[in-house]
Amino acid sequence: MIGAAKKKLSVLAVGPHPDDLEIGCGGTLLQLARAGHQVHLAVMTQGGAGGDGARRWAEQEAVAKHYKAKSLRWLGFTDTRVPLDKAGIDVLEAVLKAVKPDLVFAPWGDDTHQDHRHTSSIVRSATRYTPNVLFYEVPSTIEFLPDVYVDISRTLAGKYAALRLHKSQVNKVNVAGLSIIDCARSMAQFRGYQGRVKAAEGFKALRLRLSF
Amino acid sequence: MIGAAKKKLSVLAVGPHPDDLEIGCGGTLLQLARAGHQVHLAVMTQGGAGGDGARRWAEQEAVAKHYKAKSLRWLGFTDTRVPLDKAGIDVLEAVLKAVKPDLVFAPWGDDTHQDHRHTSSIVRSATRYTPNVLFYEVPSTIEFLPDVYVDISRTLAGKYAALRLHKSQVNKVNVAGLSIIDCARSMAQFRGYQGRVKAAEGFKALRLRLSF
Amino acid sequence: MIGAAKKKLSVLAVGPHPDDLEIGCGGTLLQLARAGHQVHLAVMTQGGAGGDGARRWAEQEAVAKHYKAKSLRWLGFTDTRVPLDKAGIDVLEAVLKAVKPDLVFAPWGDDTHQDHRHTSSIVRSATRYTPNVLFYEVPSTIEFLPDVYVDISRTLAGKYAALRLHKSQVNKVNVAGLSIIDCARSMAQFRGYQGRVKAAEGFKALRLRLSF
Amino acid sequence: MIGAAKKKLSVLAVGPHPDDLEIGCGGTLLQLARAGHQVHLAVMTQGGAGGDGARRWAEQEAVAKHYKAKSLRWLGFTDTRVPLDKAGIDVLEAVLKAVKPDLVFAPWGDDTHQDHRHTSSIVRSATRYTPNVLFYEVPSTIEFLPDVYVDISRTLAGKYAALRLHKSQVNKVNVAGLSIIDCARSMAQFRGYQGRVKAAEGFKALRLRLSF
Amino acid sequence: MIGAAKKKLSVLAVGPHPDDLEIGCGGTLLQLARAGHQVHLAVMTQGGAGGDGARRWAEQEAVAKHYKAKSLRWLGFTDTRVPLDKAGIDVLEAVLKAVKPDLVFAPWGDDTHQDHRHTSSIVRSATRYTPNVLFYEVPSTIEFLPDVYVDISRTLAGKYAALRLHKSQVNKVNVAGLSIIDCARSMAQFRGYQGRVKAAEGFKALRLRLSF
Amino acid sequence: MIGAAKKKLSVLAVGPHPDDLEIGCGGTLLQLARAGHQVHLAVMTQGGAGGDGARRWAEQEAVAKHYKAKSLRWLGFTDTRVPLDKAGIDVLEAVLKAVKPDLVFAPWGDDTHQDHRHTSSIVRSATRYTPNVLFYEVPSTIEFLPDVYVDISRTLAGKYAALRLHKSQVNKVNVAGLSIIDCARSMAQFRGYQGRVKAAEGFKALRLRLSF
Repeated sequence: MIGAAKKKLSVLAVGPHPDDLEIGCGGTLLQLARAGHQVHLAVMTQGGAGGDGARRWAEQEAVAKHYKAKSLRWLGFTDTRVPLDKAGIDVLEAVLKAVKPDLVFAPWGDDTHQDHRHTSSIVRSATRYTPNVLFYEVPSTIEFLPDVYVDISRTLAGKYAALRLHKSQVNKVNVAGLSIIDCARSMAQFRGYQGRVKAAEGFKALRLRLSF
Repeated sequence: MIGAAKKKLSVLAVGPHPDDLEIGCGGTLLQLARAGHQVHLAVMTQGGAGGDGARRWAEQEAVAKHYKAKSLRWLGFTDTRVPLDKAGIDVLEAVLKAVKPDLVFAPWGDDTHQDHRHTSSIVRSATRYTPNVLFYEVPSTIEFLPDVYVDISRTLAGKYAALRLHKSQVNKVNVAGLSIIDCARSMAQFRGYQGRVKAAEGFKALRLRLSF
Repeated sequence: MIGAAKKKLSVLAVGPHPDDLEIGCGGTLLQLARAGHQVHLAVMTQGGAGGDGARRWAEQEAVAKHYKAKSLRWLGFTDTRVPLDKAGIDVLEAVLKAVKPDLVFAPWGDDTHQDHRHTSSIVRSATRYTPNVLFYEVPSTIEFLPDVYVDISRTLAGKYAALRLHKSQVNKVNVAGLSIIDCARSMAQFRGYQGRVKAAEGFKALRLRLSF
Repeated sequence: MIGAAKKKLSVLAVGPHPDDLEIGCGGTLLQLARAGHQVHLAVMTQGGAGGDGARRWAEQEAVAKHYKAKSLRWLGFTDTRVPLDKAGIDVLEAVLKAVKPDLVFAPWGDDTHQDHRHTSSIVRSATRYTPNVLFYEVPSTIEFLPDVYVDISRTLAGKYAALRLHKSQVNKVNVAGLSIIDCARSMAQFRGYQGRVKAAEGFKALRLRLSF
Repeated sequence: MIGAAKKKLSVLAVGPHPDDLEIGCGGTLLQLARAGHQVHLAVMTQGGAGGDGARRWAEQEAVAKHYKAKSLRWLGFTDTRVPLDKAGIDVLEAVLKAVKPDLVFAPWGDDTHQDHRHTSSIVRSATRYTPNVLFYEVPSTIEFLPDVYVDISRTLAGKYAALRLHKSQVNKVNVAGLSIIDCARSMAQFRGYQGRVKAAEGFKALRLRLSF
Repeated sequence: MIGAAKKKLSVLAVGPHPDDLEIGCGGTLLQLARAGHQVHLAVMTQGGAGGDGARRWAEQEAVAKHYKAKSLRWLGFTDTRVPLDKAGIDVLEAVLKAVKPDLVFAPWGDDTHQDHRHTSSIVRSATRYTPNVLFYEVPSTIEFLPDVYVDISRTLAGKYAALRLHKSQVNKVNVAGLSIIDCARSMAQFRGYQGRVKAAEGFKALRLRLSF
């Protein structure tokens, strides 16, 4: 009931590595794209530390098509070495200048992975004029208390499909015997009953502007 | 850009005393009403400790008309003695049963006034199935960090007008030489530049559900 | 690897209503009981607001047997009306005097249900000399960030079995189409990958005393 | 009533860019200077990213005279590139060695601008032996909850005058139609009624030492 | 260096039971009294649950003389049953009306003892117009992060003397083998090196107003 | 009662400078070593800024023997210049690969010393697969609220002995007239009565996994 009114939104989703966006806000991105909003993706690194960078590049490109994203930008940083602040801010500001997003998705700032912490800090600076910025969670996120929920019941299957396109990563979960689909399912249900729906993605706003 | 989509919303705003709603979310309520949503008001007490209860009753009734509110309910508690929890929860649950709100506004839980703390606690319990609950601030609020902003540039004049209808309260501010209009103006600008607009009301979500 | 050393523990688990203990710490209680520790249960109310009190009483008694609990105490409060503080503290202090627990489990203090908030506050006072107090979560818990995890991989099936003994409650979840088993599964996986195991229950310590 | 007793204080105010000190603690600095305390200013950068560095240098020098400050030190960092920690700490430690401040003012650590975050972190290290350190806010500050207030009713006009000396910046506010004087006025009133005075600057202490 | 300037202060210290004020802010009260400020004490209960109420009454009266306090008021509540909010607020408001304090000391709001939680909540309401309110800690306090320190090096001996006047309580510490003097010493040193002095009491401000 | 069960633990304690481990977790390390667990030490720098690096190296080596530590690794960073994140993460990951710790001790992330902040951040990344990570405090730590306590009554004398082996540092405390033994004693008592024992070290878990 509360969502995008009238105008079509320009949306930018920023991920540290291939597959972070899918686990953190893939269901929401699919929903936005299906409703006709423009979805742009920006990925900081090719994820070379977690697999073959070229393969992961191709997987993320396939996901962008799956979302019918307007663009997928590779920001050119090295996996595990996303810089803290200015060098990254400049690169992201150029993207923001091109995309002019109404809404930005970014990783939450506390995480066991330094690339997530740094990406979040970069986004915090670069989006200083952006009206809406929402932080998402991934399995390595720490101390995250969402209070904004997107009901993804209708796009949960599409989210699983997006995750399966990251073939090299599906079984690379920190816990033996769990696939990334298991993670996504439990996360969707866990945040779902907090948001009082069957499946949800949870977010925390840096800044969210409502207009009725 | 993010707001109520398609369906008209049923909105319930809960205030501890007459005028709390005006200062906390009056601009937002006017905006909702003008956009055709159903706005219902519920006020816990007649505010007898801060003035003549009968007079304040009449002032709040005038404000309800100013909002074109669908209803104004007086919940019958005594000023300064809003109970903590069950007695209040029962009364508010009856209102929720009647109004079936999609969105509830309530005072933030930390405040120097016990009625605000208790009302917030009551709402926390009574709205357990409500998809959207937003906490607002008033001058006595403590430790409040909003992250949801409603742009009230278009309804700021209407908010001042609503506050002036509380004639008995306009100059009853804790600080000598400041009227409640001064408070409202500085609050709107302060939250405005945080939300990157000229005038805003700031909110913190207990739970906000977006759907695109 | 870190757990109970040498001495057998006396454990007291305090639940506001029948079934809260099962969802919050059932896997942990089973594990403690199987390892030979003494498990005592105390339930504040019979849960009459969420069903037939007599039936729920019987269901919880069956669960106590399933755990091989040493005792199940009914503390006699009325569902939705657990008092805040002294009246409840006296009753719980009497239980603590009898059980002399080394470890107490209690609901987290922020929750949409007032009985959970009040029970947590009561436990906070009554356990002032108890060396170990751990707070658990349930689906209505708010703002909970666990940092202590119990690996329940071996007792997850037993936890489901305990939940199924609450026959009247299995399908009483706030979200249509989800059973309490679905909730428990997603919670166990969600907290599991945070704790780096396949299934976990998450806790926050009021006070935890380690000795090597 | 609570303030500087007996001894004259040595005060150091650290700002990331020209004009940050004026918006954050200008009224307090004027009050300190008028009461005979020694006020020293240190500015990390000339603010070249937000205008002409030479012009902004001159504007800040004029403000220092307006305050009757004992010194204004330019710390030589590049706008938007204040380093995180050691390089900055060394420079600031040299200033502290010269000024021997009893009281330091610094920007709050959470902010959309990286220079503010980094300056705050640098001050946190460099002031480890300083008895009093107070964090101030500016329009880009995030998550700031002051609990120390300085009544600036008597120096508010002087604060506006200081801000107007930053001629190149007066109308450079992130929100169209608001001048920096509007920002300062709403901030002074907003923090004022929180501090129960007509106009205040709000602070959060890293460490404040009272002696009666 | 920062302390009471010019005018003599009227100070009100509110304690839940006899001896709480001594452990929490006794060194500060002695310092205030010696500097000529008016110190008023208010104690919620006679502490009958922790000993003989009549004896504890006499002990606290002796401490008041030791402080050269202007008054000691007994607020008449029953130990362990300090009410939450209105009944207590009325009683405390009457005291505030008489004393007109510039500065109030109160127990921190999170504590394993309900009387401390409730007293803190009462003070929060009753002091809504008081310019300075500082929360102190006692051994049962939880989650307390002071940022205001009073150097009590000169009054530490006097603080110990005050504690020894509570003869019935000196050895009633929750930990075997520790006297309340041991507690006071370790607390003074622990908060001391945080405040960069040899001995300190630590406080957290609800609201502190400085004027230079 | 809760501690290491059955299996012997591999423990890694990470300190920014010589002596940080002793003050933060020396009593716990002694207890672990005496109980037969393998204790490994890693120190980021030789502490050349706080004294003669060679001398401090020798002092820490003596302490390692005192602990009967299995290893002491010097990670080779320069005092005051521990890098933020990747360079440090690589070095620490190599240690983790060798030691395979079940339990890691690390400094808390908020501190007036940048080396402590950075070491904590490095550990947060490097230990992402470690089941148990506990943060300790030192005198320069800020905003630390422990909830896990280790009773060090039996090893307190040994902790003092370890601190005295840092001969060059014993009297280098920020507060005149306090030795590091005074600090350690007051900290042990202060955290002790919070943990309800005579002497304790306090910890905050990043992640603690219990198994009964």
